[in-house]
Amino acid sequence: MRATTIHAPFDMRVEDVPDAVVRDATDAVVRVVRACICGSDLWAYRGESARTPGQRIGHEFLGIVEEAGADVRGLKPGDLVVAPFVWSDGTCDYCAEGLQTSCPNGGFWGSAGSDGGQGEAVRVPFADGTLVKLPADAASDDHLLTALLALSDVLGTGHHAALGAGVRKGSTVAVVGDGAVGLCGVLAARRLGAERIIALGRHTARTDIARAFGATDVVAERGEAAEAAVRELTGGHGAHAVIEAVGTEQSMRTAVAVTRDGGSIGYVGVPHGSGTGLDLSVMFDRNIALRGGVAPVRAYIPELLPDILDGTIDPSPVFDLTVGLEGVPGGYRAMDERTALKVLVKP
Amino acid sequence: MRATTIHAPFDMRVEDVPDAVVRDATDAVVRVVRACICGSDLWAYRGESARTPGQRIGHEFLGIVEEAGADVRGLKPGDLVVAPFVWSDGTCDYCAEGLQTSCPNGGFWGSAGSDGGQGEAVRVPFADGTLVKLPADAASDDHLLTALLALSDVLGTGHHAALGAGVRKGSTVAVVGDGAVGLCGVLAARRLGAERIIALGRHTARTDIARAFGATDVVAERGEAAEAAVRELTGGHGAHAVIEAVGTEQSMRTAVAVTRDGGSIGYVGVPHGSGTGLDLSVMFDRNIALRGGVAPVRAYIPELLPDILDGTIDPSPVFDLTVGLEGVPGGYRAMDERTALKVLVKP
Repeated sequence: MRATTIHAPFDMRVEDVPDAVVRDATDAVVRVVRACICGSDLWAYRGESARTPGQRIGHEFLGIVEEAGADVRGLKPGDLVVAPFVWSDGTCDYCAEGLQTSCPNGGFWGSAGSDGGQGEAVRVPFADGTLVKLPADAASDDHLLTALLALSDVLGTGHHAALGAGVRKGSTVAVVGDGAVGLCGVLAARRLGAERIIALGRHTARTDIARAFGATDVVAERGEAAEAAVRELTGGHGAHAVIEAVGTEQSMRTAVAVTRDGGSIGYVGVPHGSGTGLDLSVMFDRNIALRGGVAPVRAYIPELLPDILDGTIDPSPVFDLTVGLEGVPGGYRAMDERTALKVLVKP
Repeated sequence: MRATTIHAPFDMRVEDVPDAVVRDATDAVVRVVRACICGSDLWAYRGESARTPGQRIGHEFLGIVEEAGADVRGLKPGDLVVAPFVWSDGTCDYCAEGLQTSCPNGGFWGSAGSDGGQGEAVRVPFADGTLVKLPADAASDDHLLTALLALSDVLGTGHHAALGAGVRKGSTVAVVGDGAVGLCGVLAARRLGAERIIALGRHTARTDIARAFGATDVVAERGEAAEAAVRELTGGHGAHAVIEAVGTEQSMRTAVAVTRDGGSIGYVGVPHGSGTGLDLSVMFDRNIALRGGVAPVRAYIPELLPDILDGTIDPSPVFDLTVGLEGVPGGYRAMDERTALKVLVKP
């Protein structure tokens, strides 16, 4: 089969690789119908996180079950399913409590030895624990399929950030980061009842989506000017709930600066950089909490799925460029150069 | 009047200073009946936090109202009152929401120009917002007075840590720090219904108090051995709720290491040191939350006071040495040399 591989920074290829097959009785093979490129894939692309040459990549996909191992109970060939960005056994304590990202048998698509989502098919370990069945008739609805793909990562990650930030009915929220996750944070905050949502961003194409997703204010300034603008919009105090969806030291500093005393930062930007960007003395004096991390999106799919199916939320606008599988390397270039927000892949 | 002053590291004096007087109509003057020395006072004592020579010190006291300004409504001369470790106006948004430590009119006892608790009397700004009245008959109960003094800081701070750690009925809690705040964290966790409380500490005098306060396990190892011991006690996973009551980089590292994935660190140790001790990548991967900061103890006094009065909790064992006002410099030495846990001052 064909799949995307990474050989060196900026060297993405689509190559022939061994077919995905059932190896363990709890495996399933999923034929990929929709996949996409994540902002966090760019850290590998740019060489900021290490990869073995030839390693597979892509951790967001949905598709059709092609084959199910003998011990797979809840799925059968032909089922339409979405995969969260980590697999998990569905039976351990962490899975039971909804923290599938800490499952001791879990793993990340594209990690050494596993298939990645940016390919024709994927061997899915622990298929019963990992995959979530979607309505069969969604398979023929192009727009809906795209919206459902967001369940694999960005929507659940935005929701995790909103929960970490403590968003509830009536909240004032600031969102640092105008990528797909930040935008889904806006959507999730709106869904949780936030009254005021301040999106920080300078790119009109992105802030337009933020507004469509529920942002009530947009702050286009950068750095300290942005912090001052958020404080001015919030009576000088900052927002109680702040979503950090970038992962740099600078974005974390901005997040702390725009948080109201006693408030909370929900952080989901994968940390990179040598330091944390956190001044613990400031956080201590102002009682600012930090909650978040890698989102257990598997836990959130059952809650978010019905709202996509009935049209309450539609995250599909975060996908603004569509490529075929052979176009994936070009998709990386487009996202790296910020000419695309998030690239949809139709193998 | 006589009061404690700090002139340089290790140079504490008890000297004649101007009498505490009502300056503003919202002030009261409180004659100090009980005060104490805080672990955080030692940072000034050791020169690790700067002080102006001659500055006053001491932020924990209770006493009798001697004079009340014309606008003080809820207090009159003769009332027995306890002061939280910061004053606050009692009228702003932050005070209304129980975050008095962020009151824009608030301040810290002993800060430049203010009286400190380790003296004969204290001018209390915003007396109505700051002070909490205690039952008059407590004034004649030596043991009860000592217990009530803990409301000024350590008990409320331990409670804040327990809340930040997310302690609830049935929780497993680990407590990093065997000082008075850590011990009060044990007491607060027990009060909130924790089922298992693991206290980290090597000094039997302190861990005996921890056990009396509700610790079910004591880990006497240090560093990585301590972390391994906590994990072994918790099925390999760590504690869901962790109280950090020291404030060093090492203690924060220990706190992260003993927190279960998806758990929370309630931190109340005043941060000192150049770094944070936080590895954000580890916290991200394991979804470990960090909540806490300077405790708004004023908000907690109404909740904790009845439990002291009826004997449900008794924090008084944290005081293990009593001095008169002239003995305060010796009290600092004793705490610095760790021959005393926490020094009670009877002016």
